[in-house]
Amino acid sequence: MAEGISLEELQLAARNHGMPLEALRYPVTPVGLHYLLTHYDVPEVDAASWSLGVHAERELSLGLDELRARPRVELTVTMECAGNGRARLDPRPVSQPWLLEAVGTARWAGTPLRPLLEEAGVGEGVVEILFTGVDRGAEGGDEQAFQRALPVEEALRDEVLLAYEMNGAPLPPQHGFPLRLVVPGWYGMTNVKWLTEIEVLREPFSGYQQSWSYRIRQHEDEEGEPLSRMLPRSLLVPPGIPEFLTRERLVPAGEILVQGRAWSGLAPVASVEVSADGGSSWAPAELETEDGPWAWRGWSFRWQAEPGSWVLCSRARDEAGNEQPLEPAWNLGGYANNSVQRVPATVTG
Amino acid sequence: MAEGISLEELQLAARNHGMPLEALRYPVTPVGLHYLLTHYDVPEVDAASWSLGVHAERELSLGLDELRARPRVELTVTMECAGNGRARLDPRPVSQPWLLEAVGTARWAGTPLRPLLEEAGVGEGVVEILFTGVDRGAEGGDEQAFQRALPVEEALRDEVLLAYEMNGAPLPPQHGFPLRLVVPGWYGMTNVKWLTEIEVLREPFSGYQQSWSYRIRQHEDEEGEPLSRMLPRSLLVPPGIPEFLTRERLVPAGEILVQGRAWSGLAPVASVEVSADGGSSWAPAELETEDGPWAWRGWSFRWQAEPGSWVLCSRARDEAGNEQPLEPAWNLGGYANNSVQRVPATVTG
Repeated sequence: MAEGISLEELQLAARNHGMPLEALRYPVTPVGLHYLLTHYDVPEVDAASWSLGVHAERELSLGLDELRARPRVELTVTMECAGNGRARLDPRPVSQPWLLEAVGTARWAGTPLRPLLEEAGVGEGVVEILFTGVDRGAEGGDEQAFQRALPVEEALRDEVLLAYEMNGAPLPPQHGFPLRLVVPGWYGMTNVKWLTEIEVLREPFSGYQQSWSYRIRQHEDEEGEPLSRMLPRSLLVPPGIPEFLTRERLVPAGEILVQGRAWSGLAPVASVEVSADGGSSWAPAELETEDGPWAWRGWSFRWQAEPGSWVLCSRARDEAGNEQPLEPAWNLGGYANNSVQRVPATVTG
Repeated sequence: MAEGISLEELQLAARNHGMPLEALRYPVTPVGLHYLLTHYDVPEVDAASWSLGVHAERELSLGLDELRARPRVELTVTMECAGNGRARLDPRPVSQPWLLEAVGTARWAGTPLRPLLEEAGVGEGVVEILFTGVDRGAEGGDEQAFQRALPVEEALRDEVLLAYEMNGAPLPPQHGFPLRLVVPGWYGMTNVKWLTEIEVLREPFSGYQQSWSYRIRQHEDEEGEPLSRMLPRSLLVPPGIPEFLTRERLVPAGEILVQGRAWSGLAPVASVEVSADGGSSWAPAELETEDGPWAWRGWSFRWQAEPGSWVLCSRARDEAGNEQPLEPAWNLGGYANNSVQRVPATVTG
């Protein structure tokens, strides 16, 4: 669990930030409340001199105006860090110590990737598309730009965007200005920020963020399984009011409308259940209408809150049958911990 | 020091966030990079039904449109949390565990407070003006709205604003929508967010955030000294590139332009000095022109970086003679630690 966080972890937690859970009330997360993880530094990018290079059968170079002149698509997309829940693992993998809040939903606008790749000519034998950001740092002992690759069939999906707007405005610096990749349904690291190079690969990418980070493994000597799509998760808006330090909730007795949102990158959300007794008994929540296939889905539950101590939980199941576990599954990197949230609440009569 | 952060502290660090120090490059901090501390929850405020009540010789009630129709002033203001630096104290006071980054500068627009107070009639014998936010929580064992009072002579200063815009847009929810108090030069807690009531007081306010929190004391049984204006501080943009986990900097040898910003709520910044050897020797930085009396002041320093291990520091002095100390002065609440920043850097040849 999260006791004994080190100075290094705290330095990361002070820079990066989650979405305060009361912001689950917004179907689209306001900028500044959306979660943010920056591996290295937020780079300074001059849009006038920046360009996107595409290295395929043909070499293309596009400025921001050229990208904005291409077909425009808007999508509402929920994005979650693959490390969300890491600080709730025991022993705790040392990296950004997320508890629950590393999520957000934005309205991204940009141009679809596929037509651009087709113009450049993907060519025979290409297995992956590599995306490179402007941001540089050292990790695993090597200096590097942030780089991630996608299997070519995923990169060619219709919903993959080169996004230049977030919530109706140019990307903020911290979310990738002037351009980022948006791959709906996948964990956050896929959505390369400050994107500047796209390259076709005939061999799988072996860079640090692909072959070491973002893999599920139990031991250092395993190759591990790469992370891709978000596992199902549901989070609820903590009801009542908080105690400042403990964040425990004080709730008046009576009917309380418990609200939350649920998502899965694997399949549409099929159901959400709510428990007030820490997961011993469950009752179904009511699902709101969808906002497209890539956004979280709102839900609500009328809770008859009686005086006493309670632990509120919710759990999502998707149409592929994936369900949140009650207890986390440990792995070395601390990824994909989608075990259910627990919100201690004291109901006063 | 910051080893052994607890779950409760981490919960706060995951919600609240500092300004990544590379964002010192912006004279006005983009929304989402400005530091943020929310005591309780970000409340949901319906601007249409919200009003500001003023309780003085006369009772006034103003809607947002009425406030926007009043004289408009814009000010660039640097705001720092009084708890900035808390996690670097030993023993560490348990609260939001800030390291260095709890600062930001915004362009606030709103209407001056003074004419409104004069219309309402402050009256004889008034010693303080009390400001109440919509946000509620429990702290020190009591349920409360967030409330802070200002001495009447401070509340009547020309630069005190009722702000409805930040950086040219309506306040974001997390920065106090629809209205917040902005008191230039004072620590962050003074700038009450989600402001809904203003009240004249004939006795000093004794609420939790005034009589217990935000006071400098060594022992629990002391009354303590209230915090008010920001002590001088300077921060620098860490040069080169970071190692992901340690945040240590890798810097190429040669001339490096080290840049930073400095501020003091007590008096204008008089000088900034830079050290590359952890504070053993100092050299003057060059100050940029001011952006008004309430914004941080940019500075730069040409560092001849030679291969080896260095610790970069900067320290500000203001025109009243206040200077940052090399070592922090401990206090029970962990406030006002303006000791100098230390940035370990490895210069490679």
